[in-house]
Amino acid sequence: MATVKGNCIVAQSGGPTAVINASACGVIQTALKHPETFTGTYGALNGILGVLNEELFDLGKEDPATIEGLKQTPAAGLGSCRYKLKDLTKDRTDYERIVEVFKAHNIRYFFYCGGNDSMDTADKVSRLAGEMNYELVAIGVPKTIDNDLAETDHCPGYGSTVKYLAAAIMEAGKDTDALYTTDTCTIVEVMGRNAGWIAAGTGLAHRDEQDAPHLIYLPEIPFSVDRFVKDVAETVKRNGGCVIVAGEGIRDEKGCFLAETGGAFGKDSFGHSQLGGAGEVLRAIVEQEVGIKARTNKLGTCQRSAMHFASLTDRDEAYLCGQAAVEAALAGKSLKMVTLIRGGSGIRGGSGTDDYSCTTGLADLSQVANGEKKVPRDFINEAGNHITQAMRDYVMPLVQGEVPVQIGSDGLPVYVRLRRNVLARRTAGRFAKS
Amino acid sequence: MATVKGNCIVAQSGGPTAVINASACGVIQTALKHPETFTGTYGALNGILGVLNEELFDLGKEDPATIEGLKQTPAAGLGSCRYKLKDLTKDRTDYERIVEVFKAHNIRYFFYCGGNDSMDTADKVSRLAGEMNYELVAIGVPKTIDNDLAETDHCPGYGSTVKYLAAAIMEAGKDTDALYTTDTCTIVEVMGRNAGWIAAGTGLAHRDEQDAPHLIYLPEIPFSVDRFVKDVAETVKRNGGCVIVAGEGIRDEKGCFLAETGGAFGKDSFGHSQLGGAGEVLRAIVEQEVGIKARTNKLGTCQRSAMHFASLTDRDEAYLCGQAAVEAALAGKSLKMVTLIRGGSGIRGGSGTDDYSCTTGLADLSQVANGEKKVPRDFINEAGNHITQAMRDYVMPLVQGEVPVQIGSDGLPVYVRLRRNVLARRTAGRFAKS
Repeated sequence: MATVKGNCIVAQSGGPTAVINASACGVIQTALKHPETFTGTYGALNGILGVLNEELFDLGKEDPATIEGLKQTPAAGLGSCRYKLKDLTKDRTDYERIVEVFKAHNIRYFFYCGGNDSMDTADKVSRLAGEMNYELVAIGVPKTIDNDLAETDHCPGYGSTVKYLAAAIMEAGKDTDALYTTDTCTIVEVMGRNAGWIAAGTGLAHRDEQDAPHLIYLPEIPFSVDRFVKDVAETVKRNGGCVIVAGEGIRDEKGCFLAETGGAFGKDSFGHSQLGGAGEVLRAIVEQEVGIKARTNKLGTCQRSAMHFASLTDRDEAYLCGQAAVEAALAGKSLKMVTLIRGGSGIRGGSGTDDYSCTTGLADLSQVANGEKKVPRDFINEAGNHITQAMRDYVMPLVQGEVPVQIGSDGLPVYVRLRRNVLARRTAGRFAKS
Repeated sequence: MATVKGNCIVAQSGGPTAVINASACGVIQTALKHPETFTGTYGALNGILGVLNEELFDLGKEDPATIEGLKQTPAAGLGSCRYKLKDLTKDRTDYERIVEVFKAHNIRYFFYCGGNDSMDTADKVSRLAGEMNYELVAIGVPKTIDNDLAETDHCPGYGSTVKYLAAAIMEAGKDTDALYTTDTCTIVEVMGRNAGWIAAGTGLAHRDEQDAPHLIYLPEIPFSVDRFVKDVAETVKRNGGCVIVAGEGIRDEKGCFLAETGGAFGKDSFGHSQLGGAGEVLRAIVEQEVGIKARTNKLGTCQRSAMHFASLTDRDEAYLCGQAAVEAALAGKSLKMVTLIRGGSGIRGGSGTDDYSCTTGLADLSQVANGEKKVPRDFINEAGNHITQAMRDYVMPLVQGEVPVQIGSDGLPVYVRLRRNVLARRTAGRFAKS
């Protein structure tokens, strides 16, 4: 039973995904069905920044068709942010400001879609509110293409990124295959700073020996230039060409990112060392050390927002997580994040049995905040340059189905934009981003 | 009336596209229906290289379902190449070798899918064969995502690249919009060395002022760093963020490619100056001169092989071109390339009338070989940083419809691979790639 009646707010944080709006939709549509508990359903502009700035809007005033359209609209329709709150033990200003704004608008339920930093924020804000004798229910909704959150089998956003990237790499593989006499090697740099889930997932495209990707490098396995050169040379000899997937966060034995430690290969032309450069470093190594022409594809933000070929399973689970968050609040829970639990044998697609199911559970926000899940060693082959059947079995159910996208008369997808009916200010303070 | 009976051969050349296999399919399926003229239907492995190397295969021995599957398989199923024949007036070796191989296999019909270099090759080989008293019919099939071939309204491959890129940029635009408080600017580098058709086409995603792309830079308009900095700053001020599309071939007033002339911005870490670097140069300019964070997306070969969101109109026209090439040969034509002719008012989609039609015509190979079509000035706005309604009207019909792609039990597209039943050699010579 919900313990308090008041307004609820939903916010989105961190890097957008193809399906974080589906989660928001799940929260909004479910909350709107329970006016007995939620007197109003609000959104925060750009995550926690919108609360700090008191930039809130009334989602109940949106056209229901627009809310429904969030299910097929990528990125963060409410706006997102990368603002990290200060350490609560050192500076309570941000937290007290958040509680002030929540109080001013009688916001009693805080649904936060994000990664572990967001779960930490939700946890601490709710606890501080309690200390201040203001009851604030906080429920987290998991979101990250990186798939590295603890306590959940997988994360909404991940399946869609893998589905799109695997298809794109399959296609780039056909392209490389067709031109192997000149453009012999293609390197695709994918996201994933600390965990290689995305890179590993693209291995699904490798149905047989000829299929791309032929080599996959993850942050979990220390990168060796010598071994890499050997891998590429052998693959080209056997296959005629080579398509390589590399996580942006690949690093050497000392834990230094490749883009920072590539030595002669490593610095960019502006003297910067930075992530996002791993692909270019690998290209230089291939051209100089293997002696073949290499190209680099870096899909960047396109890989996390590709609703035009998103996973229906992922989208539906993202919605489910939003729905479950509201239901948990209605059941009197707080300080929890919704998790996804794989049921049955957990396998679907390919030659496996068709026995995947998924339900939701709840984990403590604090557990998620302090955890991180990497790709297990047995999901990676012995040589550390590709995946195993266990990884294929893990990821295959997550990329099943395609989200139906509305196409406009101009031949392009139709995505919605919220009207964002702004709430009148009730506090004097205005937060200045530091 | 066809003037000679014999075998026909189809070959693919240059950068692959999503639909060049549809053109090959059009050639193959049409040729197989006419055994009274085409005693055999062959393919060359990797374009003209396969002829020089006498690496030919019998397409009549492929499973018809595989041939049909070419309609939804990207890149060049026969293999492609970037081999440029030597100047006929200086060295006849290559040409004579081609005629030798054609003679040995009684190949009388040469269908070549490619760009202007390929049309030049087909033209010269056919003429030289004639001089050697060997009747060889040569018909070209247009292919290039660059859309820069003369004599044709547009080129198969272009519409699919634009459809995919415009959707990807629309999605990346939503992503940038959601994170504009930190990741304020996104630069998408697209293909197009000499002509800006691809960059211009992505302007279709800009349905209103808030929609990406906000700025578009083409090789046709000399690039000015000062004007660019001003454009970006103004856009960010007005819109909060900025998504920029840049053709890889943008260049300054002197015609020097940006990646070569960026001065402090221009060289990569390995001392190379090269195409494909324009996006990174722009990123450096934005970060240093505008003072905001910028990201770069470079879809590379993914943009020309994205069958998973290809244009059905483009695919069907690509097939039509292959079919028309064979029909032209059957009608006794030679030394021609199939062209696409826009009929009606030529407009479809958006707010325009629904009055687009497309038929095929024929142009002299030599005319295509020596021509190049750039984006007309009136398709580009006065400021030289976006497109006009005329460009929208031109491109909109070309991106209509989506190619239905078969999805496997693993959730990913199913593309075919030809078996390539190799023909026994009939010549002693073996060409060594120089």
